[in-house]
Amino acid sequence: MISFEPIGTIHTPYKEAAPYQPIANDKGEFYIELLPHYEAGLKELLRFRYIYVLFYIDRLKEAPKMRFTPPWLTNKELGLFATRTPSRPNPIGLSIVKLINVIDNKIYVSGLDVYEGTPLLDIKPYIKDLDDKPDANYGWLDDVDNKEHFMLHIKGIPHDY
Amino acid sequence: MISFEPIGTIHTPYKEAAPYQPIANDKGEFYIELLPHYEAGLKELLRFRYIYVLFYIDRLKEAPKMRFTPPWLTNKELGLFATRTPSRPNPIGLSIVKLINVIDNKIYVSGLDVYEGTPLLDIKPYIKDLDDKPDANYGWLDDVDNKEHFMLHIKGIPHDY
Repeated sequence: MISFEPIGTIHTPYKEAAPYQPIANDKGEFYIELLPHYEAGLKELLRFRYIYVLFYIDRLKEAPKMRFTPPWLTNKELGLFATRTPSRPNPIGLSIVKLINVIDNKIYVSGLDVYEGTPLLDIKPYIKDLDDKPDANYGWLDDVDNKEHFMLHIKGIPHDY
Repeated sequence: MISFEPIGTIHTPYKEAAPYQPIANDKGEFYIELLPHYEAGLKELLRFRYIYVLFYIDRLKEAPKMRFTPPWLTNKELGLFATRTPSRPNPIGLSIVKLINVIDNKIYVSGLDVYEGTPLLDIKPYIKDLDDKPDANYGWLDDVDNKEHFMLHIKGIPHDY
């Protein structure tokens, strides 16, 4: 058994429903409030354009299923670890967001895909050349009909059709 | 208090010392052994070129310090959250590795920067367009003398000078 304690709280406008992935330009304020005794650990963080936010997915409604068929891919069964579903054996969420500002113990960021009040586990810098993989691929997402449209949904980009 | 349980074990050739970052082409075998009852969750994972590996940093020797000066940057004090130091309030490690093969409950990957026997917390697919940020930056790494040389070290690329 491994035990962690929240090091802060994530604040978002999402009280009833949260998107599946970060929506960079979503309306409302997104900030992370670090416990005050960790504030000194933020020095030089603002130098980075992007950060990883690790959080505890604390509002799970369903037990994890090892295999499932997502609604947008009716003919395909996916393994849990090939997806980003929040229902995981260890519900640790991982989001990459743009850093906007750091003021005292508050970290202002672009849209974060979590509910208001989500417990923060860790923050790490996203480092050029180390974390961006230009040759990454889409995996099973290649099988989705109209993948480009689907990616707009995944990335939360508004579109008219 | 948040509790997690390992979902598997990471196997690497690193018994006495481990590198700071994944060394893609390091010698030896790197694989993740998932607990057998999670094996069904690997379906379609091999479609992805890269995956995130989340693990528990279980061999910490030092308590986390909110600020420190790394040996390669003698004039600068960094906040813990602006670094990837393993000594963190919640020691969750995050590595991106190339997927080589999946056989039963074993996931063969490129070099992973962890000790043999490290407990696995989660695996997530690294998805093109969502996780690769071409406009990411180097943060405070821009201040390191001879940054290009330093990045070779960080990325574990062998070099002669």
